Amino acid sequence: MKVGYIGLGLMGNPMSKNLVKNGHEVTVWNRTASRMQELVEAGAKASRSAAEVACNSEFIFTNVSDSADVEEVVLGEGGIIEGASAGSVVIDNSTISPDVTKRIASKLSEKSVDMLDAPVSGGDIGAAAGTLSVMVGGEREIFDRCLPVLKAIGTSITYCGEIGLGQATKLSNQILGLGNMAAACEAIVFATKAGVDPEALINAWAGGAANSWMMANLGPKIFKRDFAPGFMVDLAQKDLRLVLESASEMNVPLLTTPIVNQMYRSVQQDGDGTDGIQAYVKALEKLAGMEIGS
Amino acid sequence: MKVGYIGLGLMGNPMSKNLVKNGHEVTVWNRTASRMQELVEAGAKASRSAAEVACNSEFIFTNVSDSADVEEVVLGEGGIIEGASAGSVVIDNSTISPDVTKRIASKLSEKSVDMLDAPVSGGDIGAAAGTLSVMVGGEREIFDRCLPVLKAIGTSITYCGEIGLGQATKLSNQILGLGNMAAACEAIVFATKAGVDPEALINAWAGGAANSWMMANLGPKIFKRDFAPGFMVDLAQKDLRLVLESASEMNVPLLTTPIVNQMYRSVQQDGDGTDGIQAYVKALEKLAGMEIGS
Repeated sequence: MKVGYIGLGLMGNPMSKNLVKNGHEVTVWNRTASRMQELVEAGAKASRSAAEVACNSEFIFTNVSDSADVEEVVLGEGGIIEGASAGSVVIDNSTISPDVTKRIASKLSEKSVDMLDAPVSGGDIGAAAGTLSVMVGGEREIFDRCLPVLKAIGTSITYCGEIGLGQATKLSNQILGLGNMAAACEAIVFATKAGVDPEALINAWAGGAANSWMMANLGPKIFKRDFAPGFMVDLAQKDLRLVLESASEMNVPLLTTPIVNQMYRSVQQDGDGTDGIQAYVKALEKLAGMEIGS
Repeated sequence: MKVGYIGLGLMGNPMSKNLVKNGHEVTVWNRTASRMQELVEAGAKASRSAAEVACNSEFIFTNVSDSADVEEVVLGEGGIIEGASAGSVVIDNSTISPDVTKRIASKLSEKSVDMLDAPVSGGDIGAAAGTLSVMVGGEREIFDRCLPVLKAIGTSITYCGEIGLGQATKLSNQILGLGNMAAACEAIVFATKAGVDPEALINAWAGGAANSWMMANLGPKIFKRDFAPGFMVDLAQKDLRLVLESASEMNVPLLTTPIVNQMYRSVQQDGDGTDGIQAYVKALEKLAGMEIGS
């Protein structure tokens, strides 16, 4: 099929490559043009604008940073809306505001262009392997039509409901995961101060009712002081901002999530925003006057 | 071996039975005497006091509710200390204060009686199956000596360090697990208010980086409004009280754990303290003016 991919960052690069590998005819565009070279070598065609990508594609993926970036690349000058033909579908892999998503979809529908919000989870490793979890919002019929291309980027494709609910599901996923990270760090700081050996802790926690993906995968990194990013603090903070904005719009009180957000702010203020999310422990360490694993 | 078991509650009953099944010569005592009948039928011998159990046993397990209960059954009138011979070992399966544990061990050592703290995780199901995770504190040499009896009650036996560190490990396990529960409930309330279907949520969360034992096992119960206890709110609150006391003694600031404690207090004040810990969601529902899954 004729597929477009706009936004060739850490995630968009491997995701668009998987579309090429799956035999689709892929046209790409990226604001920083040099990033397109790698995709051209992989077999994609470079474009001069998002509009040009849209012109050549039945399915147009977008994967940019934040709500305003999606708005610009879809509705702005030289944007998708200028090139897309009636019946084509914009599939947004970015994580952005559910409300902005609805607004963009409504503008596109005026030109008979459809939209799905399809944020992903699974990191750059899942993106490269094509094993992402994709959370999709939009009309069921459009979802069904897009399934063949969605299957090129992920293994778990979940239909979440109307437009915007893919984003709502993704945001709830971040409440859960980052909340688990915060709990993991409090447990680590408590047990370390008490004097328990890291290996004993990891052994005792593993496989029990307290276990989480975050503790199992990032806990050992904390003990080794390995703060290399799988998922970056700055991006987690963007997601938490979207969570708190959306919760405020829906009048949903959240109690522990705002604390997680403030603790990550402290990590950012110390210049560690490009660390992985396990750097949450650094803010706790400051409060506790101690350092884990050193 | 000659083994004693004191405290035949929900956990102590199946744990002492497993000691019988493993071929040990088991003597039991319980404050409410009628609870001993089942164990006698299983092949254990009933006693008239904790002291009498100690008299007949090389390894004396205790499994009662709280710090004061362990103190009484070990050091009080008719307690273990009155009957235990030099070289025997008290193995405490209760979850209590690490500091009280150290004090009890020190009193026992005056009579050359050894002690291990060995709180467990895995619930009544793990207790019955003999698959508990056991977190052990005390001298390494005593731990090695007790391994054969410990293996009758659990499959994952972790040596955590000196006396009290089994309890510290268990308390950190509760910070982690109950923190994961709180994050799960915030994610569920947020996504439900947004209008996402429960099945879509559970599918999207499962297997991803946000997953936890709590969400995978208790999340579906929340959507079904099944609040039957695996682990009871009142017992979780006892553990959180021990966590916060211990954190205060060690000068470790915890940020999200006290909120979890206060939310569970609201569940208790509504008379739901005997619900399972998934009832955390009830306090959030009150704040959000909504009910999940109804």
